[in-house]
Amino acid sequence: MNTPLLDTIDTPHDLRQLSAEQLPQLASELREFLLDSVSKSGGHFASNLGVIELTIALHHVYNTPEDHLVWDVGHQSYPHKILTGRKNRMDTIRQYGGLAGFPKRSESEYDDFGVGHSSTSIGAALGMAVADKLSGSPARSVAIIGDGAMTAGQAFEALNCAGDMDVNLLVILNDNEMSISPNVGALPKYLARNVMRDWHGVLHELKQQSNKVLDKLPAPVKEPVKEIAEKAEHKFKAIASESEHIKQSLSLFENFGFEYTGAIDGHNLPQLIDVLKDLRQRKGPQLLHIITKKGQGYKLAENDPVKYHAIGKTPVSGSLKDETAKPKPTYTQIFGQWLCDQAAADERLIAITPAMREGSGLVEFEQQFPTRYFDVGIAEQHAVTFAAGLACRGAKPVVAIYSTFLQRGYDQLLHDVALQNLPVMFAIDRAGIVGADGPTHAGAYDLSFLRCVPNMVIATPSDENECRLLLSTCYQLNQPSAVRYPRGSGCGAAVSGSLNTVEVGKGIIRKQGEKIAIIAFGSMVQPSLAVAEKLNASVADMRFVKPLDVDLIVKLAKSHDYIVCVEENAQMGGAGSAVLETMAQHGCLKPTLLCGIPDIVTEHGDPNILLRNMDLEEETLLAKIQAFVQQ
Amino acid sequence: MNTPLLDTIDTPHDLRQLSAEQLPQLASELREFLLDSVSKSGGHFASNLGVIELTIALHHVYNTPEDHLVWDVGHQSYPHKILTGRKNRMDTIRQYGGLAGFPKRSESEYDDFGVGHSSTSIGAALGMAVADKLSGSPARSVAIIGDGAMTAGQAFEALNCAGDMDVNLLVILNDNEMSISPNVGALPKYLARNVMRDWHGVLHELKQQSNKVLDKLPAPVKEPVKEIAEKAEHKFKAIASESEHIKQSLSLFENFGFEYTGAIDGHNLPQLIDVLKDLRQRKGPQLLHIITKKGQGYKLAENDPVKYHAIGKTPVSGSLKDETAKPKPTYTQIFGQWLCDQAAADERLIAITPAMREGSGLVEFEQQFPTRYFDVGIAEQHAVTFAAGLACRGAKPVVAIYSTFLQRGYDQLLHDVALQNLPVMFAIDRAGIVGADGPTHAGAYDLSFLRCVPNMVIATPSDENECRLLLSTCYQLNQPSAVRYPRGSGCGAAVSGSLNTVEVGKGIIRKQGEKIAIIAFGSMVQPSLAVAEKLNASVADMRFVKPLDVDLIVKLAKSHDYIVCVEENAQMGGAGSAVLETMAQHGCLKPTLLCGIPDIVTEHGDPNILLRNMDLEEETLLAKIQAFVQQ
Repeated sequence: MNTPLLDTIDTPHDLRQLSAEQLPQLASELREFLLDSVSKSGGHFASNLGVIELTIALHHVYNTPEDHLVWDVGHQSYPHKILTGRKNRMDTIRQYGGLAGFPKRSESEYDDFGVGHSSTSIGAALGMAVADKLSGSPARSVAIIGDGAMTAGQAFEALNCAGDMDVNLLVILNDNEMSISPNVGALPKYLARNVMRDWHGVLHELKQQSNKVLDKLPAPVKEPVKEIAEKAEHKFKAIASESEHIKQSLSLFENFGFEYTGAIDGHNLPQLIDVLKDLRQRKGPQLLHIITKKGQGYKLAENDPVKYHAIGKTPVSGSLKDETAKPKPTYTQIFGQWLCDQAAADERLIAITPAMREGSGLVEFEQQFPTRYFDVGIAEQHAVTFAAGLACRGAKPVVAIYSTFLQRGYDQLLHDVALQNLPVMFAIDRAGIVGADGPTHAGAYDLSFLRCVPNMVIATPSDENECRLLLSTCYQLNQPSAVRYPRGSGCGAAVSGSLNTVEVGKGIIRKQGEKIAIIAFGSMVQPSLAVAEKLNASVADMRFVKPLDVDLIVKLAKSHDYIVCVEENAQMGGAGSAVLETMAQHGCLKPTLLCGIPDIVTEHGDPNILLRNMDLEEETLLAKIQAFVQQ
Repeated sequence: MNTPLLDTIDTPHDLRQLSAEQLPQLASELREFLLDSVSKSGGHFASNLGVIELTIALHHVYNTPEDHLVWDVGHQSYPHKILTGRKNRMDTIRQYGGLAGFPKRSESEYDDFGVGHSSTSIGAALGMAVADKLSGSPARSVAIIGDGAMTAGQAFEALNCAGDMDVNLLVILNDNEMSISPNVGALPKYLARNVMRDWHGVLHELKQQSNKVLDKLPAPVKEPVKEIAEKAEHKFKAIASESEHIKQSLSLFENFGFEYTGAIDGHNLPQLIDVLKDLRQRKGPQLLHIITKKGQGYKLAENDPVKYHAIGKTPVSGSLKDETAKPKPTYTQIFGQWLCDQAAADERLIAITPAMREGSGLVEFEQQFPTRYFDVGIAEQHAVTFAAGLACRGAKPVVAIYSTFLQRGYDQLLHDVALQNLPVMFAIDRAGIVGADGPTHAGAYDLSFLRCVPNMVIATPSDENECRLLLSTCYQLNQPSAVRYPRGSGCGAAVSGSLNTVEVGKGIIRKQGEKIAIIAFGSMVQPSLAVAEKLNASVADMRFVKPLDVDLIVKLAKSHDYIVCVEENAQMGGAGSAVLETMAQHGCLKPTLLCGIPDIVTEHGDPNILLRNMDLEEETLLAKIQAFVQQ
């Protein structure tokens, strides 16, 4: 690959030495480099191709890192990473020990704000702008946000707040006309607003022409014509003034107190640079609306931006997973199939997703049950309260959501669903370690933050068939429930086609051993069984974190010397903690080892490596238990 | 009090029998009754006076409870309660065993949705409307939301979602021109939009007049005048069409897909009824904009709606608190004073509130440090991310927030603050039982949902002086922290004026006893000390829930037979659970009793009664511990 100009760029300082004429070539080389590196390493793709020119223009015009760039979500930060000293490590992106897939403050001084979840950029950049203003710093802050991320309430809250402040903030709305859910939202109507004419100018011209005609009229007829002409002029002035007034209050962003510029072509580098240079000098909140194309410069991605949103890497050797085995269905697929089957059996079922149709396995459901499918956009809060409203009227809503995004609907789950004991079921995907996406997406906390919620039933399926059983079981309840399952596939258990249920709050002993009882939850049952073989330990698959099977725990505690709790959730306040509470309450505390996600910010990379490092993989879990019992 | 018409109303069915002429009298009687009952019982006031006419009109026009009314926040639901069979119990409102201060599904079939937190009504009513549509029910759903509640992102998410749906939903924007934070928000600009003229009609009239003049003109001059007139007409048509087009896209709500009606006077009962009758027949999402006055009909409340937002009841005998004692400063006041002192000593301090200036004790701070005070409106998500952005640039933000509202900023706390280890301090007020506001406002969960968050320091002051010490201590940290303190006042400890700090993660033994060690947190240290006197137990004030003082816990566990953990937080996953985890980890588990808020939806009423019922008050706590050790 030949990228002579790009090769000279170690930092944005080098970039700023280039002439305006050189920049289009740099864009071309950057695009080529990105295509090459992402196709090798995997990662987000289309969104990065869409911001090549914007990224170059920003670093060219703004004095980074003294000025601040906040990339919303961060999928689109690869060109930024390449231009800020990380070009030679792009082949490590999203891999263990390599570059993060998102901006990360600890990775580079050019990454002003860590992201992953959407719609935080305006608020964060506003905070920076306010702090700089108060400290007398001339630094500028820029938030770059996509049209999809603008559907989240948090973005509105931040716009609403920023527009009233006298701060130098630039929000760049990167409008790629592909919000995740095309049917959702009023924003596109604003974005398509007309450019309006200068009607006062039109009147002025008309009057000049009219006067010429009037001057030539004979005196007797001149008066009545002049009179009607004046009347017409008066009305015209009124309507023109009204029109001006309306124009001033038309733009959504101007109503939010922002000065609006746009829309301009986000791939026209010279124009972008001119406009940014101008905006960098302006005072007060500015909004620049640019139009870009996801996948720009790569035909396949332009044509199917959903598919090319992110791509997997070309298989390489050294992966811990057996890539050649017959692919097992993922938990997402198990859920998607169950949802269709359950919906066919019960017309009250309604499925809700906050803009995660593909990721949550709802494509098939939408096709089969279009009237019972609701994509509410990136709006987790609304997704949950909307479900509560549905449940009030006899519907049985299923909210399909990633563990990490449920954090954004936490108050609504508590306040609207649980306190009212409404039968809303949460199908929580990506619970536990997620791998390449890293800590911002880790579903590490749901058991801890859900366990304290009254009326909740929480189930943790240990394999694919259990997943279907527990989904069916929780669905039938007349109270709030959550079924949490991990990213990817399980052990490959054969899945029944039935809608059978199990008893709520009852676990099962999967292996009878002695001395050591392993109380395992969800994804940790399988490694626990393997470990138990070597220790002759008992293993219980608890199935439910809440209500816990008290009888089973008491029985195990009384008949064993050691209790080991294993879960793919934060140790703090998680399922193991619930076991301790139960043993304490029933006076049967035994020496107990808690195994779970430690109290650290997790890393990104191959989940198998991460789990091994956390002592949640067969070999390291065994060693941890052995050390515990040998104390 | 003479309310003959009101006395005939047991349910809205009775109300619907009244003639239109009788309704103004009913409004007058209802206002009188409300004034009388609230002044006796305490409770929300101004907002209820503002919706008297609206409530009558709604129940008159809508077929409640088959049709659904969702009151946002619910402060304004008293007239609704009076008209729906609860008039004779209004003197019990917000008291233990009495009516709830908010709509509550379990209280009445007329309370379609339980509320307390703001901005949920549109989403909930939308859910009901969708469920009714799918089941073929003709029922209508109405959300009634104030202009203040519209600043929360969740309301925007719901509007954005509803506007695209073909459902019969009415949103009533109750615009009392008193959003909690008058400087926040773009909404007022929309609400004040002009009523625009029919310019096509104006043109028509003008043309008729013009033709009359033209007809009388002599032939030679007729042609050029006619030509210029036609030109003018053409331009006029163009501008009128553009104006029409703009009008259609002007309204915020119309852009959101709603049909907009208004603004109308919300105290004009006949007009309200006419408009509602019309709206009830219309299809698709409707928005009715009404203008009301908080405190309408009560001069004092009209003049100072903030003060009269809610009023306390006239002291009555039987209260458990000694109402005659010299008032002790509240924790809110302790915080407010500390904040001013700390801000005077460190210009990096910035205070943020999501629309809770008075409640969070920030009135003095705003006056002293106006440039460092930020009320972001009802926008908890934004408040937290804004703080994270500030911290990135060297500021030291303090987010003053109620425990229950922090639930709405949970993802932001985790994703934007904690994962990036930013020094944002959360001053968490109303942690624990809150009393009259009930379960929606109980700060029962913060220790559970914060404990699993990496990098967090969590402090629980046990008295007023400790509160100041721990605020000073956490403020100095270079990482995220939270200081949580209860509603109301503590034991009345003398408060030092210093900004002294203590060692992080270290507790103190407050009483040395034997056999029983009470490990107490925050507000529960005082009752624990009293109980310990009678049991000769040891008492530790742990000060920090995270990091826990491991050495102290191990020492206490090894030197006592029983461990008792006491906290004003959910037992599940709370501080006691952390003590169990620590003892397990260090191999020193002892029989342990966890005392905290049980896993139920708490009730409303006098906090002392509630705490007693939960075994968190001196007498009942003692009995619980005695039963435990005598097992």
